[in-house]
Amino acid sequence: MFRRNYSSALLEDAVDQLASLPGIGRRTALRLALHLLGEPRENVEQFAGSLVRLKRDIRQCPVCGMISDDGTCPLCDDPRRDPTLVCVVESLRDVLSIENTGQYNGLYHILGGIISPIDGVGPGDLRIRELIERLETGIITEVVMALSTSMEGETTAYYLYKQIARFPVQVTAIARGVGFGDDLEYTDELTLGRSIANRQLFKP
Amino acid sequence: MFRRNYSSALLEDAVDQLASLPGIGRRTALRLALHLLGEPRENVEQFAGSLVRLKRDIRQCPVCGMISDDGTCPLCDDPRRDPTLVCVVESLRDVLSIENTGQYNGLYHILGGIISPIDGVGPGDLRIRELIERLETGIITEVVMALSTSMEGETTAYYLYKQIARFPVQVTAIARGVGFGDDLEYTDELTLGRSIANRQLFKP
Repeated sequence: MFRRNYSSALLEDAVDQLASLPGIGRRTALRLALHLLGEPRENVEQFAGSLVRLKRDIRQCPVCGMISDDGTCPLCDDPRRDPTLVCVVESLRDVLSIENTGQYNGLYHILGGIISPIDGVGPGDLRIRELIERLETGIITEVVMALSTSMEGETTAYYLYKQIARFPVQVTAIARGVGFGDDLEYTDELTLGRSIANRQLFKP
Repeated sequence: MFRRNYSSALLEDAVDQLASLPGIGRRTALRLALHLLGEPRENVEQFAGSLVRLKRDIRQCPVCGMISDDGTCPLCDDPRRDPTLVCVVESLRDVLSIENTGQYNGLYHILGGIISPIDGVGPGDLRIRELIERLETGIITEVVMALSTSMEGETTAYYLYKQIARFPVQVTAIARGVGFGDDLEYTDELTLGRSIANRQLFKP
C-alpha cells in the first residue's frame, strides 16, 4: 500500500481481511477500507454486525439442508412446491442457481459437498442419511441428480444411485449438452460428444 | 436472489450490507456472503472486528491529517522526509497515489475535501487553519498544490493561494499534460491544449 512503512496497522489489518475475500485484490480491498473509513461509525458497526450475525445465527433446515433462520426452511414449508420431487445438489449455491431459472417446482436436498477422498470427504460427511430418511417417508417419487460432472460428482451420483435403488423412486439427472447460444466450435469435445449421443426429437 | 421469498433474513441483510460497498453488485455480494458463511466463525468475527476497529480506533495526525494509529503519523515523524516541502491534497487516497510513485520525499497536508458550495463545504470545513499554523512555524519553503482540476479544485487552490500569499513560500502545482503512453488522439482537448501551452525544454 505504502512503499515505505508509513501505514496504519489498523488499515493494513482491514485491507488484509478484505483482500481475503474471493475476487477482491489488495487494490480493491484498500478502496473498500477507505470507503468504510469515510462512513459513519454506526454504519460500519451495522455492516460488521450483519456478517457476524449471518455466521452466528443462521441455522440449517433439518430436512433439506438449506440455510434457515429457524426450523425447517420456507422452501420445504411452501405448500405450492411439489413434495414428490427432490433435486439433489452439492450446495446452497446450486439451489440459488436452479431457483433463478424458475423452471423447477420441487424440493431440494443439499448434500453439503461431494465424495472426495483427496479432500477427506467420505459418504458419512454428506447428508446422505437424511436423504434416505426422506425417501423412507414414501412421499418422494422422483430424485433429480444435479451434481457436477467432475469425477467426484459422478462418483457421488453413482454412490447415491446405489443407496437409492431399493426405493420405488425414479432417479433422473439434469440434461447435459451444448448451452443455449453457445457456438459448437467453442464447446468442449466431451459436452458436444454427449449432446450428440443424447440427441432428442426435434420439436419445432 | 430468490425469485420467490424463500431466502433467509440474515442472508438478505448481509447481502444488502455487502452490496452497499462501492463496486460490489448484488451478485458479488451474494458470493461474498456465501463465502463468509463457509468460513469458520472465528474468521468471520475477526473479519468484522477488523473493520469495526479500523473505524473506531483510527486517529488523525494532528499535523498533516493522515490516518494514524496514535499521535502524529509515521510520515510526519520520519526524519528522512524533507520538512520544508508540503504537498496539499484532498484526501488520504491522493497521498497513497503520490507515495506509490516513489517520486516525492516531502510531507503532506490533507485538506479533507475541497470547497464546494453545492455540497455545503466551505473553507472552514477544510484543514486550512492547520496549514496556516504549519506555515507559521517558518520551516516550510514550498507548498505543492495537488488538487483536482475540477472547478471546485481550482477554486480551492485559488483560495489557498490567497491565504498563503503572505508567507515567504514558493507555491507550485503538479504538472498537467498528456499522460505517458497516452495517444494524443484520445487525449481530451483541454489537457492537450494546456500541455502545448505549458511545453517544456526537450531534454533528450
